[in-house]
Amino acid sequence: ARTVKLAVIPGDGIGPEVVAEGLKVLSAAAPEHDLAFDTTSYELGARRWHATGETLPDSVEAELRGHEAIFLGAVGDPSVPSGVLERGLLLRLRFAFSHYVNLRPVRLYPGVTTPLADVAPEDIDMLVVREGTEGPYAGMGGVVRKGTPHEIATQDSVNTRFGVERVVRYAFAAAQRRPRRRLTLVHKDNVLSFAGELWQRVVREVGAEYPDVSVDYLHVDAATMFFVSQPQRFDVVVTDNLFGDIITDLGAAVAGGIGLAASGNINPENDFPSMFEPVHGSAPDIAGQGKADPTATILSAAIMLDHLGLEGAARAVERAVAEDLLARAKDGAAERSTAQIGDAIAERVAGQG
Amino acid sequence: ARTVKLAVIPGDGIGPEVVAEGLKVLSAAAPEHDLAFDTTSYELGARRWHATGETLPDSVEAELRGHEAIFLGAVGDPSVPSGVLERGLLLRLRFAFSHYVNLRPVRLYPGVTTPLADVAPEDIDMLVVREGTEGPYAGMGGVVRKGTPHEIATQDSVNTRFGVERVVRYAFAAAQRRPRRRLTLVHKDNVLSFAGELWQRVVREVGAEYPDVSVDYLHVDAATMFFVSQPQRFDVVVTDNLFGDIITDLGAAVAGGIGLAASGNINPENDFPSMFEPVHGSAPDIAGQGKADPTATILSAAIMLDHLGLEGAARAVERAVAEDLLARAKDGAAERSTAQIGDAIAERVAGQG
Ligand SMILES: CC(C)[C@H](C(=O)O)[C@@H](O)C(=O)O
Ligand SMILES: CC(C)[C@H](C(=O)O)[C@@H](O)C(=O)O
Repeated sequence: ARTVKLAVIPGDGIGPEVVAEGLKVLSAAAPEHDLAFDTTSYELGARRWHATGETLPDSVEAELRGHEAIFLGAVGDPSVPSGVLERGLLLRLRFAFSHYVNLRPVRLYPGVTTPLADVAPEDIDMLVVREGTEGPYAGMGGVVRKGTPHEIATQDSVNTRFGVERVVRYAFAAAQRRPRRRLTLVHKDNVLSFAGELWQRVVREVGAEYPDVSVDYLHVDAATMFFVSQPQRFDVVVTDNLFGDIITDLGAAVAGGIGLAASGNINPENDFPSMFEPVHGSAPDIAGQGKADPTATILSAAIMLDHLGLEGAARAVERAVAEDLLARAKDGAAERSTAQIGDAIAERVAGQG
Repeated sequence: ARTVKLAVIPGDGIGPEVVAEGLKVLSAAAPEHDLAFDTTSYELGARRWHATGETLPDSVEAELRGHEAIFLGAVGDPSVPSGVLERGLLLRLRFAFSHYVNLRPVRLYPGVTTPLADVAPEDIDMLVVREGTEGPYAGMGGVVRKGTPHEIATQDSVNTRFGVERVVRYAFAAAQRRPRRRLTLVHKDNVLSFAGELWQRVVREVGAEYPDVSVDYLHVDAATMFFVSQPQRFDVVVTDNLFGDIITDLGAAVAGGIGLAASGNINPENDFPSMFEPVHGSAPDIAGQGKADPTATILSAAIMLDHLGLEGAARAVERAVAEDLLARAKDGAAERSTAQIGDAIAERVAGQG
């Protein structure tokens, strides 16, 4: 059996609940696919920060590095100042482990209700490749004359040829593997001219190596319109860290809600462990009540299996989720707990060949 | 009669067509409201740039300054490099004339089709107050080692206490005048911590002067989700220049499309002329064919009338548009030309007391 050394960060709020279901489904998939998961759980997040002031001790970062992958629930709590855990833990891991591909599929599964009228599952099937290690997320900027009428706060977006090119290459390769072979660059080059010109130029240059991939460009503002008015037009989307953050939440909304949106923070070269997490946050308002939908986390586990080269298991998990989503639609809106959803999907996975 | 000295910039693509209808409706409103419009048209945009290399000569800027308001169609053409006209003309005017309030109502008019299922007109009625003179639009940043593998492009967002406070004050005052008295700050303070903290602090401090306005905060990514899943939750939204650009295009999409979205670039102190324009662009693909919907431009004229203190005329134009939109729904999808729509609305305005 292949044993996957997996670091688990349950995190805050609903994080531990949904991660438990993700692990349940992975365990259910294991025997059939000749897998084993050797998991180590790390307590990181609000509790640790309150207790010790630590977000991510160097020693823990070093331990995490020794794993094949990281499976994360969610971090963040209203009791912690905004940004402390996001920047000190989540973004720190994305940056430290070179997760330059933030992979976010946006798919409308059959049976799932979308807020859009007149949209069918085949109309929403895109893959957003969000850059994960630079842009406005670099954390650069500062404040002068704080608290005075003359205060200035800056926030700097950093875009490198190196950083843009590697994610654009990944996106082209991903587009080439999909039936429609279409790549849309989303940026705002008419205003953010320095960064925008770099992104455009890199897409043009790398695109010359992929003549079978058709390329187009949309300003981010127009892209949000098309996400709701014409989602069919998107296949693979490549975009910067901040625009990707925004449009993938919107993508989650149109594809049935944040309860279903999965993501992978990927280092394609495997120089570092990649990290898999639902797009949603820690939702402290519903934490501990068994109300959270673990589906996004379970689908993130499927992205992880894909990344680990375990395509058979990945497809089995995805199939089980798709079946469960269809069953939900048929059974009406029968309320199930977090664990019941996890059980149902785990059972289906276990039953798959 | 009050005579309004109006500068008109028809611009590119569909700009001249929609501006003509806007002026038609203003003329129709004039007699009943004892108004006259003394208009001067300025040829600015792609043609001028091709002919002379100019986007906005200083002398023209000085002439525009001598008007009470500017009425603009759209600028931009694929034959002009991306950003040249946007930055050299449109943004230059917004910055030079201190249009720090970019006012963008998002309303679903009865009869208008929205891409959202299960949404009624009363569910979408918000006012987005977008900052217009700083943020990532300041144009700051640069490139080093261009064209090499070590290229770096930066893009800097500039946020000042002065700039943030004045737009936040405007937003609170606007919220106080509306029945729901609710203000939502949209930012991304967990990542853009320098700018985000400034915005949060200013909203807190100014909010103390408006105890009857309830305040909440949303990250921009979450805000895009709620725009489609729960637009009811928004009343007045205040946000930075870039986030405002993005969410107002999304707002236009959910409220029936870019053909209806109006805006005002406002200098509340009237130190400079304010500028009114549809949110849509120049749409060169349909230019000159009478296919453009002039409604967004006509509604922008209504915002202009409001700004000029001509509330009676503003309400009359809005009412005429609302009636026309309802009539469109009743008559089915009878295709009308740009001029026919303008005629119909102008007739209704003329008929109003
Ligand atoms: C929590 C936050 C820092 C994060 C981000 O902005 O990337 C989240 O919104 C996401 O999309 O994963
Ligand atoms: C044309 C462009 C510069 C402009 C902007 O980004 O502000 C437009 O999108 C808008 O919203 O008015």
